Amino acid sequence: VLIDLQQLDDLAAGCAVLGTGGGGDTGPDLLQARAAVESSGPVRVVDLDELADDTLVMPIGAWGAPTVGLEKLGSGREGTTLIAAVERAFGRRVGALMAGEIGGGNGILPVSLASRTGLPLADADGMGRAFPYGYQVAMHVAGLNASPVFLTDEHGNVVTIEPADADWYERLARGVTVMFGATAVGADYVMDAAVARRSTVRGSVSLACRIGAALRTAGLVGVLDTTGGTQLVTGKVVDLERRTEAGFARGGFTIDGTGDDAGRTLRVLVQNENLAVTEQQTTLASVPDLISVLDEASAVAIPTERLRHGQRVHLIAAPCAAVWRTARGLEVAGPAAFGLDHPYVPLDAPPR
Amino acid sequence: VLIDLQQLDDLAAGCAVLGTGGGGDTGPDLLQARAAVESSGPVRVVDLDELADDTLVMPIGAWGAPTVGLEKLGSGREGTTLIAAVERAFGRRVGALMAGEIGGGNGILPVSLASRTGLPLADADGMGRAFPYGYQVAMHVAGLNASPVFLTDEHGNVVTIEPADADWYERLARGVTVMFGATAVGADYVMDAAVARRSTVRGSVSLACRIGAALRTAGLVGVLDTTGGTQLVTGKVVDLERRTEAGFARGGFTIDGTGDDAGRTLRVLVQNENLAVTEQQTTLASVPDLISVLDEASAVAIPTERLRHGQRVHLIAAPCAAVWRTARGLEVAGPAAFGLDHPYVPLDAPPR
Repeated sequence: VLIDLQQLDDLAAGCAVLGTGGGGDTGPDLLQARAAVESSGPVRVVDLDELADDTLVMPIGAWGAPTVGLEKLGSGREGTTLIAAVERAFGRRVGALMAGEIGGGNGILPVSLASRTGLPLADADGMGRAFPYGYQVAMHVAGLNASPVFLTDEHGNVVTIEPADADWYERLARGVTVMFGATAVGADYVMDAAVARRSTVRGSVSLACRIGAALRTAGLVGVLDTTGGTQLVTGKVVDLERRTEAGFARGGFTIDGTGDDAGRTLRVLVQNENLAVTEQQTTLASVPDLISVLDEASAVAIPTERLRHGQRVHLIAAPCAAVWRTARGLEVAGPAAFGLDHPYVPLDAPPR
Repeated sequence: VLIDLQQLDDLAAGCAVLGTGGGGDTGPDLLQARAAVESSGPVRVVDLDELADDTLVMPIGAWGAPTVGLEKLGSGREGTTLIAAVERAFGRRVGALMAGEIGGGNGILPVSLASRTGLPLADADGMGRAFPYGYQVAMHVAGLNASPVFLTDEHGNVVTIEPADADWYERLARGVTVMFGATAVGADYVMDAAVARRSTVRGSVSLACRIGAALRTAGLVGVLDTTGGTQLVTGKVVDLERRTEAGFARGGFTIDGTGDDAGRTLRVLVQNENLAVTEQQTTLASVPDLISVLDEASAVAIPTERLRHGQRVHLIAAPCAAVWRTARGLEVAGPAAFGLDHPYVPLDAPPR
């Protein structure tokens, strides 16, 4: 599969849906990826089975509050700086790139780098969506060590973290990101393809492309079809609350139902991503399942930092990748991992 | 020259004087070094001329607020963790250790590691005293790059910083130190012996041993003789002000003269180290020259964090290493580098 300019637009639209409000706005990354594909050519997407066992796979992504990422563009050299740091540390060449998270701009970010370096892009990611914490990845659930974690910024600073444990990983990486000015580009869980095959969410790049294509041709119905999702409500955004704290965009918003949904009021809780939806006292959907806001007219997904009071939207929810429904997966990214006290009810299960 | 248990006590006493109130209390480091020398044997101190040109010299020291270092002991594995990180990054063996700063506990810290690893200790350091900022070293004045900077803590976290410039070096290293809980053990300016010969303050380990021996045999007079110093006042500590902020111990204290000095009042300004002494409107001594507080009875140097109200002390000042009196040296560690607006008057020059 090749990502050319048409595929790139579909990929971006799909990543926005899988971003569940976070992962960074797709706009800036899409512009950079378009410029790269125009000048350096399309990107080859490969299944992990196509790579030799010992191919070094480098997951890459932007870190920090997406509200800041909107205003602070990178230098464009972050990716090659990271590849150089990884190759120095591992003493061998990077053989493939991978999105750390497929959701939002982070799903598109590796495309520019893959185009400019000629490296293939693995059809996989660490989440099958976006999550706020760095360790909320399938590689962590599989018991892999993130270390060494490489972080760089637009000034050319490089910080390599070998954390004592997952808590220190989060604390140090988050702290360095804040020192960089609240955004960083990072690589972690650098691994061989043989390991990646059993430790990642597979097929996420092609899924995002399929979602984007279905959105383009069939709108909301296409998105629900390709994600296996449900429409929770159609309505107007009100009571938008958003603050940037400790490197996160936190808050929430309310959707007042319109049309057939008139009289209904749904509340969405946010930490970079949409975490949970409640209606009166009932939880309608929750992490790790996907909760996304789509523009009512175009069905295009809207990231948290682009939400505006009065906007007319569909709120949809879709089942997460299987890894998140395992006991270990729920420990890492279930409601309790976010301090929420409702039990997790899988989205395709009958409502309580 | 060998550092055995007797030499170690002299070294510690000398490092305390050269610490100018900072560099960390010598107590904990002396205990660790004694235990190491008792179990693993004395340490060989070598002149940089005795090392082969391409011997890799690793400067090491503790970072952060000495007020915290007093309460937070290391795991004892920090040094070997750093050596391993340096050897991985440089692809060759460390051939000699060096104190990043000879002042305070940081002058003794490398002794334990040298004893346990059998590595020689270079008779040199980066400062010829202690300074609060990581870049206030002769290697920086000589135009060397600190990068990569290796930091570790008692949990086994390792962070490697390749900063874009000296400002980012300070910002990132200081920030990581604060994340570690306000103290870290670090290595930077790792260099070949050929480079170290022209980029460090040489002879500082033997100078510290000589100061300590003279203190032991001749008290205050011995210290003044070996440092070329001057007694500024003898008196009582009053108005002690101390706060830990942004990873630094800041504040100041006043000495009210006693005996022949009755009626005099001198104020000492502190940022980890003693920065300047004023009497009425006159600056009597200032960075980069050395300002130290000695116990009146024993002439033992007292670090800032051990000062107590009512303590009877001598305040002395001594000329700094020649590198700090160059134009570039004064830019890096003169009064203006600390935001002080008095001009620097070298200490052996006649008073204004």
